[in-house]
Amino acid sequence: MTDFAAWMQDCQARMESVLADWLPPARIAPERLHEAMRYAVLGGGKRVRPLLAFAAGEVTAADVGRVQHAAAAVELIHAYSLVHDDMPAMDDDALRRGKPTVHVEFDEATALLVGDALQSLAFDILASQPLADDAATQLKMVQVLAQAAGSRGMAGGQAIDLASVGKPLDLAELEFMHIHKTGALIRAAVLLGAHCGTASEAATAALDHYAKCIGLAFQVVDDVLDAEASTATLGKTAGKDAANNKPTYVSLLGAARARELAQELRADAHAALDSLEAPAARLRQLADFVVERTF
Amino acid sequence: MTDFAAWMQDCQARMESVLADWLPPARIAPERLHEAMRYAVLGGGKRVRPLLAFAAGEVTAADVGRVQHAAAAVELIHAYSLVHDDMPAMDDDALRRGKPTVHVEFDEATALLVGDALQSLAFDILASQPLADDAATQLKMVQVLAQAAGSRGMAGGQAIDLASVGKPLDLAELEFMHIHKTGALIRAAVLLGAHCGTASEAATAALDHYAKCIGLAFQVVDDVLDAEASTATLGKTAGKDAANNKPTYVSLLGAARARELAQELRADAHAALDSLEAPAARLRQLADFVVERTF
Repeated sequence: MTDFAAWMQDCQARMESVLADWLPPARIAPERLHEAMRYAVLGGGKRVRPLLAFAAGEVTAADVGRVQHAAAAVELIHAYSLVHDDMPAMDDDALRRGKPTVHVEFDEATALLVGDALQSLAFDILASQPLADDAATQLKMVQVLAQAAGSRGMAGGQAIDLASVGKPLDLAELEFMHIHKTGALIRAAVLLGAHCGTASEAATAALDHYAKCIGLAFQVVDDVLDAEASTATLGKTAGKDAANNKPTYVSLLGAARARELAQELRADAHAALDSLEAPAARLRQLADFVVERTF
Repeated sequence: MTDFAAWMQDCQARMESVLADWLPPARIAPERLHEAMRYAVLGGGKRVRPLLAFAAGEVTAADVGRVQHAAAAVELIHAYSLVHDDMPAMDDDALRRGKPTVHVEFDEATALLVGDALQSLAFDILASQPLADDAATQLKMVQVLAQAAGSRGMAGGQAIDLASVGKPLDLAELEFMHIHKTGALIRAAVLLGAHCGTASEAATAALDHYAKCIGLAFQVVDDVLDAEASTATLGKTAGKDAANNKPTYVSLLGAARARELAQELRADAHAALDSLEAPAARLRQLADFVVERTF
């Protein structure tokens, strides 16, 4: 195993354990809701956002014991969005991370409440213990996550996505959607990890630019994989975008140019890291991972 | 108009204006989502939770310019819960505050995202500017609201409510449900209002006890009104509990004893206020209002 693969595995194991601790046990009332919350969050996922938070925390010399909680908060927002996105009123998907989606395994009302309660838990975590050098910075972290999740961030991106089905989008419109839908939370992951340590304004700006590039690259690669990989490899339904007549980087640019674009975004992300004083080996490797992944 | 009625009207007008300022304008993308968020929140509602926050802030000499933001955050959590509760997967209701519910006026996917984005906005507001004497207290406010909204608060109460349809609950179980479903957020409203000023531990405990009583009284009266008032008076579908075979204070105790219980809870709430050093005229009047209201 490479050093990077071992680091990833270590972060993922830590994340699983921290999330398992934060999620209420299924034996506490309301039992079924808590069981469904644990089902939605635990035992799967690449944990890309937590990995980014851990890697950004390294750059600002953040205590990993702090970063793990910030990372958990971001991952819970991501997990809640998947639960709601999979519901019949939205993407109506039955498979996620190789398992039945929450509304299929439980029921729609429970899925709705699972998402709602996971979002609340994310903010509970961000506010429940010292995670930054001072409380004012930590309040700023709450604000960053709330704005990334809200109508001018992830939820807004989802609304733009829904409105775009069957419509011809140009590249600028597609990018606008993804900057909101997936980009906002990826930026929050990097910024929250960094704020657990001591980040200068210049470093924060460079990390933010890195995160923007990675967020877009992530989506471009997602589109390529959705078009080319199998459902078994992805652990979620493949070919969904074409089936739904959704505009994607592949439908707009073709797969070859989309792959090229992902490479350009990686180079741009690497360049942003070059401006940092501290080394940023993990963030660099994560940029490679995001672009080269096959699942 | 009585002095209390004028105060209520003043608070409600202030709340409307503050909420209108925090909600993104409908001309900003995603336009339809922002339009639906404004539809869900503005132009209606008794604003009971904001009134409680303003009244609790008076007890701790809080700046009303701070309390109005804390009150807005609580009201947005309440508004999001109504939007999600009205959806077909939950209570499936078509009427709210005399208007079509959000999923009827817009669509289900939009209603889902409206609720999600309103919750995010609530935490954005609580973190975006100084609302307490120090940032650590303000972080505590974020935590109070997150826990009140989450699986061991409001969302959990909703789950217990769903699981109880058609089941015989005893009085203790019914109370357990309501302490979560409506009580938790009402307590948060009082505590957040108080934390905008300077609240001793003893005062906080007394206010919390007041809020617990008021939260239950509110629900008992809701059950009485649902059983006895008309849809036109309530602005929402009346007689729903009996139609859904839901256990209520009226079905368990009868209307007469339920009314009596509301009076006892009011007396208990008033007694809690007697222990405060500062006068708490508005909280006292609000206890009366909650118990005597007819809509």
